[in-house]
Amino acid sequence: MSSFTPQDELAIATIRTLAVDVVGKANSGHPGAPMGMAPVAHVLFSRFLNANPKNSKWFNRDRFVLSNGCALQYVLLHLLGYKLSLDDLKAFRQLDSKTPGHPEAGHTDGIEVTTGPLGQGFANGVGLAIAQAHLGAVYNKDGFNLINNYTYVFTGDGCLMEGVASEAASLGGHLQLGNLIVIYDDNHISIDGDTAVAFTENVEQRFLAYGWQVLHVSNGDTDLGGIYNAIAEAREEKNKPTIIRLRTTIGYGSKQQGTHGVHGSPLKADDIAALKIRFGFDPEEKFAVPQAAYDLYAEFGKRGATLEAEWNSQLQAYGQKYPNEYAELTRRISGELPTGWEKTLPVYKPTDPAQASRKLSEIVLTAIIPSLPDLMGGSADLTGSNLTKVKSSVDFQPPSTGLGTYAGTYIRYGVREHGMGAIANGLAAYGGIIPFVATFLNFVSYASGAVRLSALSGHQVIWVATHDSIGLGEDGPTHQPIETGIALRATPNLAFWRPADGNETSAAYYVAMTSRKTPSVLSLSRQNLPNLVGSTIEKAIRGGYVLHEEENEDLTIVSTGSEVSIALEAANKLKAEGIKTRIVSLPCWLTFDQQDEEYKLSVLRSGAPILSLEALSTAGWEKYSHEQYGLPAWGASGPYLKVYEKFGITGSNIAVVGKKVVDFYKKKGGEVVSPLIKAFHL
Amino acid sequence: MSSFTPQDELAIATIRTLAVDVVGKANSGHPGAPMGMAPVAHVLFSRFLNANPKNSKWFNRDRFVLSNGCALQYVLLHLLGYKLSLDDLKAFRQLDSKTPGHPEAGHTDGIEVTTGPLGQGFANGVGLAIAQAHLGAVYNKDGFNLINNYTYVFTGDGCLMEGVASEAASLGGHLQLGNLIVIYDDNHISIDGDTAVAFTENVEQRFLAYGWQVLHVSNGDTDLGGIYNAIAEAREEKNKPTIIRLRTTIGYGSKQQGTHGVHGSPLKADDIAALKIRFGFDPEEKFAVPQAAYDLYAEFGKRGATLEAEWNSQLQAYGQKYPNEYAELTRRISGELPTGWEKTLPVYKPTDPAQASRKLSEIVLTAIIPSLPDLMGGSADLTGSNLTKVKSSVDFQPPSTGLGTYAGTYIRYGVREHGMGAIANGLAAYGGIIPFVATFLNFVSYASGAVRLSALSGHQVIWVATHDSIGLGEDGPTHQPIETGIALRATPNLAFWRPADGNETSAAYYVAMTSRKTPSVLSLSRQNLPNLVGSTIEKAIRGGYVLHEEENEDLTIVSTGSEVSIALEAANKLKAEGIKTRIVSLPCWLTFDQQDEEYKLSVLRSGAPILSLEALSTAGWEKYSHEQYGLPAWGASGPYLKVYEKFGITGSNIAVVGKKVVDFYKKKGGEVVSPLIKAFHL
Ligand SMILES: [Ca+2]
Ligand SMILES: [Ca+2]
Repeated sequence: MSSFTPQDELAIATIRTLAVDVVGKANSGHPGAPMGMAPVAHVLFSRFLNANPKNSKWFNRDRFVLSNGCALQYVLLHLLGYKLSLDDLKAFRQLDSKTPGHPEAGHTDGIEVTTGPLGQGFANGVGLAIAQAHLGAVYNKDGFNLINNYTYVFTGDGCLMEGVASEAASLGGHLQLGNLIVIYDDNHISIDGDTAVAFTENVEQRFLAYGWQVLHVSNGDTDLGGIYNAIAEAREEKNKPTIIRLRTTIGYGSKQQGTHGVHGSPLKADDIAALKIRFGFDPEEKFAVPQAAYDLYAEFGKRGATLEAEWNSQLQAYGQKYPNEYAELTRRISGELPTGWEKTLPVYKPTDPAQASRKLSEIVLTAIIPSLPDLMGGSADLTGSNLTKVKSSVDFQPPSTGLGTYAGTYIRYGVREHGMGAIANGLAAYGGIIPFVATFLNFVSYASGAVRLSALSGHQVIWVATHDSIGLGEDGPTHQPIETGIALRATPNLAFWRPADGNETSAAYYVAMTSRKTPSVLSLSRQNLPNLVGSTIEKAIRGGYVLHEEENEDLTIVSTGSEVSIALEAANKLKAEGIKTRIVSLPCWLTFDQQDEEYKLSVLRSGAPILSLEALSTAGWEKYSHEQYGLPAWGASGPYLKVYEKFGITGSNIAVVGKKVVDFYKKKGGEVVSPLIKAFHL
Repeated sequence: MSSFTPQDELAIATIRTLAVDVVGKANSGHPGAPMGMAPVAHVLFSRFLNANPKNSKWFNRDRFVLSNGCALQYVLLHLLGYKLSLDDLKAFRQLDSKTPGHPEAGHTDGIEVTTGPLGQGFANGVGLAIAQAHLGAVYNKDGFNLINNYTYVFTGDGCLMEGVASEAASLGGHLQLGNLIVIYDDNHISIDGDTAVAFTENVEQRFLAYGWQVLHVSNGDTDLGGIYNAIAEAREEKNKPTIIRLRTTIGYGSKQQGTHGVHGSPLKADDIAALKIRFGFDPEEKFAVPQAAYDLYAEFGKRGATLEAEWNSQLQAYGQKYPNEYAELTRRISGELPTGWEKTLPVYKPTDPAQASRKLSEIVLTAIIPSLPDLMGGSADLTGSNLTKVKSSVDFQPPSTGLGTYAGTYIRYGVREHGMGAIANGLAAYGGIIPFVATFLNFVSYASGAVRLSALSGHQVIWVATHDSIGLGEDGPTHQPIETGIALRATPNLAFWRPADGNETSAAYYVAMTSRKTPSVLSLSRQNLPNLVGSTIEKAIRGGYVLHEEENEDLTIVSTGSEVSIALEAANKLKAEGIKTRIVSLPCWLTFDQQDEEYKLSVLRSGAPILSLEALSTAGWEKYSHEQYGLPAWGASGPYLKVYEKFGITGSNIAVVGKKVVDFYKKKGGEVVSPLIKAFHL
């Protein structure tokens, strides 16, 4: 074991007092957990964690996730020498600071994933560990253990109560992720008080059931040797993830230690003063960092810089011996896509047979996966329905199962949508991997908590969301999405694509693949869709375009996905009645909104009314149309054509509706102005 | 133990062949699970389950939940004598039938809760069992064991992989729900094939960790005695919920038994014929039910009718001895609210002090709970923030914990939002209880899967969703809802209320309480809100109303919640510039949409532009306004007034925006028509 000195005690006291000052100055935040977890944080970072604060993106760094996201992480980053000053700490929870209320990936140097929403960080950790296991299996060679980092996750009672963490823990155990080490801050306190009120399960036994190694440290407040030994033992176990239950006292050092009084509110002034005296600090001084503490953590930085330098030489030697692997790995690390991958995207003619867009998605995956090893993903137990497993792909599985290898790219997520979404965020955060995940569109909502964090964090996660409307037919309203489309469209930085045919499906993948900081949900049909006259990849990648043009139109119908061909059918019927109808396909609002004003106004132009058509809730369509047709409430169970008929989503009925719209606007008189023309834009 | 006869074998074979025919005729559905679970279903219903098919609403009936919802339930309901004919079975998965693809509560006689979306039924079962434990504790008296039913849940691998079920299982163990019995169909198969690919945890050990009694039956295909004994043993354990792991063969009797080939697709014709011959049925005959099977299940009906009659006499005797409890219990069973409860709703004057609407919600709960014992609920570990525990309420806890009693109404949900929402659906489905649940608005999305089933099933669940915008300030974008409002508003039959002050908060509760088939989400502020001139409960219960009237206005601002007072501030500033601005408060879209056309057009009238203002995504607001102001993307971490200022949601900036809108429409010319005037309505 390692020996610990008074310098270590001082460093721990510094973390504690600094956390108290950070929360105190902000007058907002959670002081208790940082105070309780200071010892384990210190032991982990000073003795084990490999990372270089001067290059927080070094690829083989150990990943650290603070699942119960709080000020602790900012305090550590500062002390360790990341780009976070004492002034940044003083600006904790202040507007436009580097230290927002909860850590955000991409916002602050050294933050791997966004945490705060409970359970997410834990599941991200499973994703980070999968990424390491996979890339290690693909690129490591004899004598070149290039990718072998650990993933360390700090978690609390709150995270472990969340279902998303349970899902990820079960899968993590199945996958035997030996480089994943979770430290559970077992302080018996959550916001409602003693965990005795709601959380009395045997956590150790639960994790044993999942197949984890379970260790514990009974005195996490002061037993540095015990903490050291537990982490060392965890690192030795290479065939199972480890959880270390660390019994700590929340708010250790405060008069209120061990109570929920220190969970979510700053300490009182007299408590802070007493605590500083107890730890040998000046009670009057704020944000004090003894030079000895900085010195101690400077060793962390030195160790990391040395390790990175060694790794870089190793990588160069690897490049000599394995030029192809080297080229691919460094390309993936850089975030570049391979040259020409997009040439493999399928292109369709209108005479090509009608196919379900979930099938078109499978054709895309089959075409692009051979040139895109970056794609790694799977389905939440709906592989045969989502059509996400292509023939060439191998299961990502522990070799001992005989079902695949860690070099495999197809992940069997089980029926764990929320865990899947959060794990995918971890895969994306690791780098070198573009994760895709799959379920029915309706069940993407099970994962809402993870999806919004993909978007907030800029994680490129691609959802293959099939069975995307009443078009799934018999499974009925429990499975037919209504509100899901607008929920996703209203999420900032999330591209919701609903392609109408083969070319649009290829376009959706093109934009999803090239948008490296934006997650995408591809909303795909169960039922067959014809290939449309007028659709091209080039047009569709603009998010919206004129599929069928008419001069001096009487009506424009704007539609998406499986309803575009129904809109065309309506247009044909209207033509017979002398009503000229343009058709606009608008597969992705986010992408269309990013086009220039002139283009957008040419697509959704003034002069004639615009009617929207989609077999989902009409909510939000008012932005792009004057009139809206869709589902008034829930869908229905039955063969899909009958369900469409029940709700009037047929060529004939939409023609009737279209005529009504034309008559209404004629009667109303005056100019019909594009809905895009507004007094202001946000 | 019970003895089983060839008649039992015949009944089981009938369930199996009927399930095969039902799925075969629909050419859609899941035959495997019903075939595998036929024996346990038969033993449970023929020997244990107490219910009266002639009155599926008898209050003390045993509750049965088929969490892995499939055709099995319809087959059973028919055989047992519920209002479901053989013709209804033949119409399985056909449009407008009583037998939609997955069972829907309120749609089909005898269905307790809506299942199909995995994990939900399991968690509903925990809610049903809590309801029994609670009502039993409140109303049972010496000699009057009025409420003592069991809740039986059938569940499969899929449900047990879902986090929502894990959350509910952990809480169910903590709560020591002795009358909850779960039967786990351990058939080693899910849609992706063998569960070895993703689900290798030790389920028994996991449930032991949760504090459950764990039993198992190794041959669930034919060992009727073993099944009987396990259920009998489960019923004896009164201090723990029980899970019985029942090893079965999916699709038992089919050529493909034990494979995922029988999971989600109908059997082939030759397989059906062979199976029928194996079970002694005519291979040519479809939907055959031997009279002996009907006769056997007629005993179930007789037993149930007798039990109900006995219970009714007991209830009458109870009424003699305990007239007050009797009156309250029968009122609750009938679904009536107590007379005059609404008189306790607080009423405010503009001179009353500003308060956060979460605080106003606490004041409502404090006022109404004493006269509404029906209200039972709690928070997902945010009690002190959601302000949901009123002084008079006692924790619902197992007496052995010393923390409360089963008669208590306050549920400590732990950090388990999805489980909480699904448990609340079970509480509502039981009857006699109006469940409320609480978390931050942003984390309602963790429970989306349950919320949409509240709405689809017509379960009156009330969400106290506090910290409802950037107004929560320092916690930052990870906690600030953006898309949550429109996601909930776009869900059919879900009332999303965002009250602006005290009277509107009372109005929200009034409508939420009196809408017995509609769930409500009350979106409540962290920050203080002034009481507004012009707000009354009577006006607000219409969902939208003119808060501040002006004749010949230049502008109307429509707003909700914490932004209404900001709109008023803007109106005052505009007035100084000679711009007359009406203010409309629109706290609930669903309720407003239900008002008569004339009223709605009087509120959002033609003649001047309407600008919407809300500190959320603007998506959907185009339905009620010409121009929309809101958040363009994510919020920010900081003191809330600074965050509001950053995004221009201040009286002065909205005045500037309002002026821009007025100028734009003046310049545009022509009549400004109400956005509510449309060519057609869905
Ligand atoms: Ca804790
Ligand atoms: Ca199964």
